[in-house]
Amino acid sequence: MREPVAQGPKEAVVVLLSGGLDSSTVAARARHERKAVHALSFDYEQRHRRELEAARQVASALGVVEHMVLPLPFGQIGGSSLTDARLAVPDAPPDPSRIGDVVPSTYVPARNTVFLAFALAYAETRGCSEVHIGANALDSSGYPDCRPEFLQAFQEAARLGTKAGLEGRGIRIVAPLVRMGKADIVREAARVGTPLHLTWSCYRGGDAACGRCESCVLRLRGFAEAGVPDPVAYEVPA
Amino acid sequence: MREPVAQGPKEAVVVLLSGGLDSSTVAARARHERKAVHALSFDYEQRHRRELEAARQVASALGVVEHMVLPLPFGQIGGSSLTDARLAVPDAPPDPSRIGDVVPSTYVPARNTVFLAFALAYAETRGCSEVHIGANALDSSGYPDCRPEFLQAFQEAARLGTKAGLEGRGIRIVAPLVRMGKADIVREAARVGTPLHLTWSCYRGGDAACGRCESCVLRLRGFAEAGVPDPVAYEVPA
Repeated sequence: MREPVAQGPKEAVVVLLSGGLDSSTVAARARHERKAVHALSFDYEQRHRRELEAARQVASALGVVEHMVLPLPFGQIGGSSLTDARLAVPDAPPDPSRIGDVVPSTYVPARNTVFLAFALAYAETRGCSEVHIGANALDSSGYPDCRPEFLQAFQEAARLGTKAGLEGRGIRIVAPLVRMGKADIVREAARVGTPLHLTWSCYRGGDAACGRCESCVLRLRGFAEAGVPDPVAYEVPA
Repeated sequence: MREPVAQGPKEAVVVLLSGGLDSSTVAARARHERKAVHALSFDYEQRHRRELEAARQVASALGVVEHMVLPLPFGQIGGSSLTDARLAVPDAPPDPSRIGDVVPSTYVPARNTVFLAFALAYAETRGCSEVHIGANALDSSGYPDCRPEFLQAFQEAARLGTKAGLEGRGIRIVAPLVRMGKADIVREAARVGTPLHLTWSCYRGGDAACGRCESCVLRLRGFAEAGVPDPVAYEVPA
């Protein structure tokens, strides 16, 4: 079966791309739908800054129009084990079903609000109609800014706070994975051709993924449940 | 008459401080109410970066707890005559009553969404209960992100997108000037002791204020209507 031939100019969208499983899958999905992707990543002084190299490689593999990496001073604000080197990244709870019960120290205050705000600015200057984000609420660490109700509220702020919204060509916030579990995300990744071997999810940002932080544990569980081998190297064999 | 003696610990708030008339008045008002002010300014590659020096002097004169200046990469995003040196800052329309009819090129995409998002992050890490912003919709350039409906929508996103909100100690967005005209703001500035001689409003950021950009014209009109002399030096005597 032939892929449908794209009609007219491609729809341009911004995709927030951290280089992890979720955002890379959202980017691959947008390319699969033949959208012109403007990828946006942030060097926010995160401990696992090596995810930016993953983001670069994923963006390149997917053939994005532009990949912008913006420096953001989250380190100056602090208050998170992802941005303050004095705080340790915790291991996931021994019982992984407890992940998400409490908001862990890896929570970065207002991170997705800031990321979406910059994505909005970027989308507005590039004439993009949508901002795609890989947030998901189901198999997550309980971060409040990954929930659909937050994204919906931000959508309204985006409509009212931009010139684009004022002129009736508002920018849509799209979160295709928000209600999916990790196993379904892994299946979706396979469907849309996410370059999984290039992605990076570990919060610790060492040479190999640690396999113990919440991000690793959620990812490993998703691959295991989906019956797909995770191509990324881990310190502790899963 | 004696000022009332403050009871218990001071309420801590974040004030977005550009160094202009409006935000400086909001900061002075918070200090007048004996709040512990955490001032937040942004070096966003704005043409009128000299406003940051004004912000520093205003913060110091008011005795804030902390003044944080965060660098933000708006220049990389572009799309505004305030952040792209290739675009000229326009003069205000000859008939000042036309100001706000169209959104001028000085509009910076999603600026207040980004500023409020960082203020939220800062407030959350410092345990502040409020974020104060000098936005005003009446005598403004028609920027969509200065309107009360935008601020209300952002308030809801802030409640849903933060750990503070999740735990029921949400951060309140306070915009005391949002429905005031400039003359009333000048009167309020006098009432709360804003150090007006230290403020800077001009978009052009030269040695003296230009007196012709929308920001200068709105300011001058406010002082004139309030019958208060503007202590700032202008290139063109008003």
